[in-house]
Amino acid sequence: MPEVVALGEPLVQFNAVTDGPLRHVTYFEKHATGTEANVCVALVRLGVSCGLITRLGADEFGLFIYNWLRGEGVDVSHIRFDPERPTGIYFVQRNYPIPGVSDVLYYRRGSAASALSPDDVDPDYVGGARVFHTTGITMAISDTARSAAFKGLEIARGKGVITSFDVNYRKKLWTRVEDAVNVLSRALNFVDIVFLDEDEASLLLGVSMVDDVFKELRSRFGIDKIVLKLGVKGSMAYWEGRVVKVDAFRVPVKDPIGAGDAYAGVFLASILRGHDVESAMRRASAAAAMVVMVRGDEENLPREDDLRRFLEGYGRQVDLR
Amino acid sequence: MPEVVALGEPLVQFNAVTDGPLRHVTYFEKHATGTEANVCVALVRLGVSCGLITRLGADEFGLFIYNWLRGEGVDVSHIRFDPERPTGIYFVQRNYPIPGVSDVLYYRRGSAASALSPDDVDPDYVGGARVFHTTGITMAISDTARSAAFKGLEIARGKGVITSFDVNYRKKLWTRVEDAVNVLSRALNFVDIVFLDEDEASLLLGVSMVDDVFKELRSRFGIDKIVLKLGVKGSMAYWEGRVVKVDAFRVPVKDPIGAGDAYAGVFLASILRGHDVESAMRRASAAAAMVVMVRGDEENLPREDDLRRFLEGYGRQVDLR
Amino acid sequence: MPEVVALGEPLVQFNAVTDGPLRHVTYFEKHATGTEANVCVALVRLGVSCGLITRLGADEFGLFIYNWLRGEGVDVSHIRFDPERPTGIYFVQRNYPIPGVSDVLYYRRGSAASALSPDDVDPDYVGGARVFHTTGITMAISDTARSAAFKGLEIARGKGVITSFDVNYRKKLWTRVEDAVNVLSRALNFVDIVFLDEDEASLLLGVSMVDDVFKELRSRFGIDKIVLKLGVKGSMAYWEGRVVKVDAFRVPVKDPIGAGDAYAGVFLASILRGHDVESAMRRASAAAAMVVMVRGDEENLPREDDLRRFLEGYGRQVDLR
Amino acid sequence: MPEVVALGEPLVQFNAVTDGPLRHVTYFEKHATGTEANVCVALVRLGVSCGLITRLGADEFGLFIYNWLRGEGVDVSHIRFDPERPTGIYFVQRNYPIPGVSDVLYYRRGSAASALSPDDVDPDYVGGARVFHTTGITMAISDTARSAAFKGLEIARGKGVITSFDVNYRKKLWTRVEDAVNVLSRALNFVDIVFLDEDEASLLLGVSMVDDVFKELRSRFGIDKIVLKLGVKGSMAYWEGRVVKVDAFRVPVKDPIGAGDAYAGVFLASILRGHDVESAMRRASAAAAMVVMVRGDEENLPREDDLRRFLEGYGRQVDLR
Amino acid sequence: MPEVVALGEPLVQFNAVTDGPLRHVTYFEKHATGTEANVCVALVRLGVSCGLITRLGADEFGLFIYNWLRGEGVDVSHIRFDPERPTGIYFVQRNYPIPGVSDVLYYRRGSAASALSPDDVDPDYVGGARVFHTTGITMAISDTARSAAFKGLEIARGKGVITSFDVNYRKKLWTRVEDAVNVLSRALNFVDIVFLDEDEASLLLGVSMVDDVFKELRSRFGIDKIVLKLGVKGSMAYWEGRVVKVDAFRVPVKDPIGAGDAYAGVFLASILRGHDVESAMRRASAAAAMVVMVRGDEENLPREDDLRRFLEGYGRQVDLR
Amino acid sequence: MPEVVALGEPLVQFNAVTDGPLRHVTYFEKHATGTEANVCVALVRLGVSCGLITRLGADEFGLFIYNWLRGEGVDVSHIRFDPERPTGIYFVQRNYPIPGVSDVLYYRRGSAASALSPDDVDPDYVGGARVFHTTGITMAISDTARSAAFKGLEIARGKGVITSFDVNYRKKLWTRVEDAVNVLSRALNFVDIVFLDEDEASLLLGVSMVDDVFKELRSRFGIDKIVLKLGVKGSMAYWEGRVVKVDAFRVPVKDPIGAGDAYAGVFLASILRGHDVESAMRRASAAAAMVVMVRGDEENLPREDDLRRFLEGYGRQVDLR
Repeated sequence: MPEVVALGEPLVQFNAVTDGPLRHVTYFEKHATGTEANVCVALVRLGVSCGLITRLGADEFGLFIYNWLRGEGVDVSHIRFDPERPTGIYFVQRNYPIPGVSDVLYYRRGSAASALSPDDVDPDYVGGARVFHTTGITMAISDTARSAAFKGLEIARGKGVITSFDVNYRKKLWTRVEDAVNVLSRALNFVDIVFLDEDEASLLLGVSMVDDVFKELRSRFGIDKIVLKLGVKGSMAYWEGRVVKVDAFRVPVKDPIGAGDAYAGVFLASILRGHDVESAMRRASAAAAMVVMVRGDEENLPREDDLRRFLEGYGRQVDLR
Repeated sequence: MPEVVALGEPLVQFNAVTDGPLRHVTYFEKHATGTEANVCVALVRLGVSCGLITRLGADEFGLFIYNWLRGEGVDVSHIRFDPERPTGIYFVQRNYPIPGVSDVLYYRRGSAASALSPDDVDPDYVGGARVFHTTGITMAISDTARSAAFKGLEIARGKGVITSFDVNYRKKLWTRVEDAVNVLSRALNFVDIVFLDEDEASLLLGVSMVDDVFKELRSRFGIDKIVLKLGVKGSMAYWEGRVVKVDAFRVPVKDPIGAGDAYAGVFLASILRGHDVESAMRRASAAAAMVVMVRGDEENLPREDDLRRFLEGYGRQVDLR
Repeated sequence: MPEVVALGEPLVQFNAVTDGPLRHVTYFEKHATGTEANVCVALVRLGVSCGLITRLGADEFGLFIYNWLRGEGVDVSHIRFDPERPTGIYFVQRNYPIPGVSDVLYYRRGSAASALSPDDVDPDYVGGARVFHTTGITMAISDTARSAAFKGLEIARGKGVITSFDVNYRKKLWTRVEDAVNVLSRALNFVDIVFLDEDEASLLLGVSMVDDVFKELRSRFGIDKIVLKLGVKGSMAYWEGRVVKVDAFRVPVKDPIGAGDAYAGVFLASILRGHDVESAMRRASAAAAMVVMVRGDEENLPREDDLRRFLEGYGRQVDLR
Repeated sequence: MPEVVALGEPLVQFNAVTDGPLRHVTYFEKHATGTEANVCVALVRLGVSCGLITRLGADEFGLFIYNWLRGEGVDVSHIRFDPERPTGIYFVQRNYPIPGVSDVLYYRRGSAASALSPDDVDPDYVGGARVFHTTGITMAISDTARSAAFKGLEIARGKGVITSFDVNYRKKLWTRVEDAVNVLSRALNFVDIVFLDEDEASLLLGVSMVDDVFKELRSRFGIDKIVLKLGVKGSMAYWEGRVVKVDAFRVPVKDPIGAGDAYAGVFLASILRGHDVESAMRRASAAAAMVVMVRGDEENLPREDDLRRFLEGYGRQVDLR
Repeated sequence: MPEVVALGEPLVQFNAVTDGPLRHVTYFEKHATGTEANVCVALVRLGVSCGLITRLGADEFGLFIYNWLRGEGVDVSHIRFDPERPTGIYFVQRNYPIPGVSDVLYYRRGSAASALSPDDVDPDYVGGARVFHTTGITMAISDTARSAAFKGLEIARGKGVITSFDVNYRKKLWTRVEDAVNVLSRALNFVDIVFLDEDEASLLLGVSMVDDVFKELRSRFGIDKIVLKLGVKGSMAYWEGRVVKVDAFRVPVKDPIGAGDAYAGVFLASILRGHDVESAMRRASAAAAMVVMVRGDEENLPREDDLRRFLEGYGRQVDLR
Repeated sequence: MPEVVALGEPLVQFNAVTDGPLRHVTYFEKHATGTEANVCVALVRLGVSCGLITRLGADEFGLFIYNWLRGEGVDVSHIRFDPERPTGIYFVQRNYPIPGVSDVLYYRRGSAASALSPDDVDPDYVGGARVFHTTGITMAISDTARSAAFKGLEIARGKGVITSFDVNYRKKLWTRVEDAVNVLSRALNFVDIVFLDEDEASLLLGVSMVDDVFKELRSRFGIDKIVLKLGVKGSMAYWEGRVVKVDAFRVPVKDPIGAGDAYAGVFLASILRGHDVESAMRRASAAAAMVVMVRGDEENLPREDDLRRFLEGYGRQVDLR
């Protein structure tokens, strides 16, 4: 049984080889991604076993994702192939119109994973894990996927499995903002560890000052393991009564997508392997910095040795300007 | 007013840079395509004005298509942007598993053009043309697009505009074969010029011998302008009582997609510019040969001078083996 | 009739895919460029109609330019194809020997556009516009092109059309510096809006301090709409008695070529759409920053929505280092 | 326990992106290969479980190979990482100097797999399989690897496991031809199924006429399951008293490397799944044809559905010339 | 002193990475070429020393050519850099509009080499060689280059140096056909060995039947060493009274440009190294076949060992279809 | 006779086209490198003649290196081809795990150059030079190469040739650190000019403060021409009693490999051409900055004119951020 079980949609990403509006981009590079899948890969790279519950299209892109996860050592026993629906995909436009920011163009409506349903969530599988992880994206892609996510959270809560949740609010996936607020707020009731950023805090809690965010999450949802990501300012955590702040590592950004997943995955892996929260945050920040330096989300997720080298070598390197 | 008006969905094509199953393909090359759009470009390259009725997503891919058509000189006055639905796309897998054959993987369900409706068909625009052209793909992508296509055919018939129809049966776009047979057969009642191949003839008419195909189309649908494409064997036409056969040009095939559109477009252009049917077929065959030599459908659609050079130079060239 | 009419040579640019001296570059990427053509595209992207007076070679590169401009919506009614002369081209060497600076290697002597002559300048076409735009490059490429440019300026002046002039001094295009000074100075007598940088000011006016530049242009040429570009320091304008300074946006530079054209085009579009000079400068600076982030000049010229997103999002993005 | 256990060296292949002598090739494409590894992947793609005994360098290329095999579903439980020795690699020069033939440049001396030794061969693992497969390459790369291969063959023989052997004579890997003849001949004494070509037959047996080859292998080594590959002429088998001939499929060749591995793997899989020898040969020939159409060895190894489509579709496709 | 001295213009070639009209080609690959330069490289690869008399631009492309020739071992002591004029370049469009044929787009008017003049031709340098080689292209690019070529031929004749001449009629380089006929005919008066094809024979001699061509060249110009290239039909020679025919090798053609240069260079090298004319023709044909399989002219020019392997291996390879 | 003679191993470098761990890199770009070879090219680009003593494999990669050096004008008269051993190669992983740092993966054990021996060192060749240059890498690759290096140093010392030595400690090339310390320390006894960095100073001298480093090298080895490289902090020299510090130029780093070779080569060239030590250091720093901006080591080594332009233009360029 894997130590961590995650639930959500893997996607094939087509990342623009050249910057600028996609109109003018001729070549696209294929990558395997998906927020929960990225977290799984982050975990197994650091030696923490992880399984993903999902559905893939019975097509070339589904096989691509499946072999990727299996190749990395992720448990694929709870992945089903859907003979009718395609694997979800999206395109990435980089550095335009805002430098350092990527735009996405989804083709995931009606995807195989959008048909995820509570039937896919095996109580023994979830119940046998130490951590169950899912995100606000799974809450957004379809009603049935949302039900599956809630079932997973409920099972976990019922069996004493730690629940980990990355808010991951994606405007393009929700018809109405209010729906997002309602659903994501409801989810927080089942959550032990939460990852969110300032905009998400503002949306869900109506506050964005760090102290207020921590206070609201604790008082309204009883969450005492909170990681608040602050972009270039770094990240802060409220962790069982303690407040910790860690700076971000500054690196040249090629594509910021995947930073949050790297953070969450490496943070969880570090906590599970006995690091204190500050060390976990520092390692998570390092991983986030590593992945934004390349196209694709998972390629630069570090193995233990590479993570150690980054932490030791950062700042001693040649100036990057 | 353009001489030809066409109706149908343009698509962005992502063509695999390397051969083999898409799992293993890393880079994809973007191309502008779509059967009726290709026909339009074939026409304007040969000096015949053409307009396309369609809908595009209000996204980067929609703008890409729009500028492509406008840049080629196609009339874009009847193209609308849909703020909600994305531009349809598809992926091309080449030479696998069958050498010389391409597989497609569509992401066009719910596309902007699938919302084409009779409202998009301006009677004056269609009625002012010499030829109205559409295909069986437009009949397949949605109920509303099908209605639009039938409206176009009806208007054209009513106003004495020549109707041109490429059967273009695409199995993946129809839920049931019977639906395709019913709809496409119904369409044939409105058609003056029809393009089809042996498999399509067999499906719709229950016969595949050339003489039988011609006989059935004439007797059941009253069509006396028929172009039957025979692949490597070339093409045959029944044209107002005359039967003509033309051999195919043999060239190295990189991607056969787009050959039929090149054929239809160059055939129509040639007929409209006064070529006899045999010359039109020969020119259409040449254009079909030209486009299969490259990825993408439209790039090698010839201008008049290039078409002439192909016809003069073919067979005098260095052996291609 | 287009709101803006421009006159000058479009070029095909072959931009080195890898940095360093061209000896060692193996692959080159084709782009459509040309200072006045870029300005036209900048204008139409922001909804201001524009037409270009020019000549192109009757070759593949000429067709490439023509379809580009027509695709973008630039009026191409005053473009002629020259059956004898080729379309002008140039090569771009990036980041060598000076980091952040590009070198050019022209193959434009004897190009189709170098045969531009006063005959190409239709008084009704120029006279019907609100703005006539040309640059010092058109003054440099040949005697006949220079005459055409002067004819355009004279017609515009005579009919109350605003004249816009980008000094664009290119050393490689002039045999002797004195010629450049004489011709460009003469041109300034016909100019309402001038764009120049400090080196150009120093060359033409013998001064380079901002106040002196403004004073000289006003006193010697009576110009009261002046935009002085200061590189990383931003830009300053003297505008009908008012002096305005706007900072540059700092972004990673891939190829600085085209920044000036983006500035001029977006500045003109903004003024024509009612922005005050400070807003126009800020928008122009943003566009200049956008285009230097990629190879090619025109790809990142923004549409209104993208320009707005840049201005709102700049500074909130992830650190780029 | 896997149905098939193989023993041998996986390699990273760097395949020239452009044809011609490697001096002039600038870009190389990385592929995962190795004759026994390819056979494993051929087997698992067709649903036959397979495990590979080998050693990999504890480096990026070793991880690449490991994740590849694991991703495909090959059992990796008997792969060890060597902390000292690198993963073996080689370069492929295509179509030069002989059209249609590839040259290889090995960097595998002292590789991790060259340290394979009898210790790596777990008797229970080999003994639990239905088939044990190795090749003459494993016999060539080092003394210890050769001993490991002989140990595997002996264990298999002792436990009634079918032994499968591909002669795979590689001149560059042997110091002296006589050594190859001695070793490979000795190996044949342990073999149930042998794959070889005419040159190899000539080398080992001193005969090359088909009947003579079959006779020698039967009389000298008691082998009655023989597959003789004849290149463009197809392949012949002597199979338990029956002689069968199957034609080759003719396809455009991009890189012939890997054809033999595809043949052996698909042949074994087909026999194990109950196909008669003629069907197995036909399927093996099809797979060999599929893989030579691309760079890399394993990408085009077919899944069952793709193999069926090739066999049905071959010959109906557009002419490839 | 080099055994062979050649005179003519090297060029940088920009070869389209993808087939089809250059409008649609995005990437171009840089190659070093030029008919006489190619002949030099063909010679030195086979161990015959060669020097080239030419002029290059004092620019990156000139340095590229210079280092190429020097790197190959061509004597560069008689190459001058021109500080004013650029190195000549051209673009290659492949397989369009005629399959297997390449189109060229020159930017060589006013190039450095067009300023070649009799001053560049050092009598001692030419006079010290065994063979002096030039072509009809040098006769076409400018009046001064033509004079230089005639000076070279005259010196060679005067000093008993064998003169070798490839007619190389390029329509685009001559203003009027008559000029070409006059100049090239005049050149033939100085020629010992001539290379030409059927079209060139027809143009210059008014006959195209092989026997007539030989007869005319002998009777009118006294040439008794004639190589007539017949494309796919192979080549024929009249050689000091003997007539020899050699078939062409059939290979897949990527870009036929450079075949003639490979033929001439390898033929000359072979004759100079003692091969009889039939062997020289066979080797020259092999080299021509080798170079048309890739983009660029010189990359596949064989070294002795590769040439031998081609000749031994051709026909034994896997079918290329 | 060349002014400088160097001794060491050239290598073919395969540089990852995309950043991140090599597992995930698909394309590799071939470059010609090797520390002493780079120094040679740096010298000849600045007009100082240089010859390299080395051995290359008699393979395509050996020919590639040979033509590269010959093309640049390096004297290749003392390069031998080894028919048995391959040319050494290595792979470059960029920006992972440490941003701005490159990892290397060598395949050079048993390479042709590892068989370099004292026999390769011609006393007349070394003795005829003004400077003899080698590095700690040559000391590390094999016993025979080390002996060759010491022979070179001894000859030079004996004949009054200036000895230049770059410590170039490469951990991966030494079995034990102590060996490196012993050998490199022994080498310092023969050295006139030494290049080293802080880590190397610490390893060999046990001190890393600048003053201590200078003092130790002077007192223990009698060296009074010392260049200490300090990374982003610049470089310092002790030069015949004078201490000079020069800042580093800050540029965007693509691949830092080769910076040291550029520094050493340009420093030597500048000293030999009469620059004072400060000017030499400034020029060397500029060259180091130039080469780190691209993949590959030698491409951006400047010619005199480019070096001058960098020094004049640096700091005036557009901000690079």
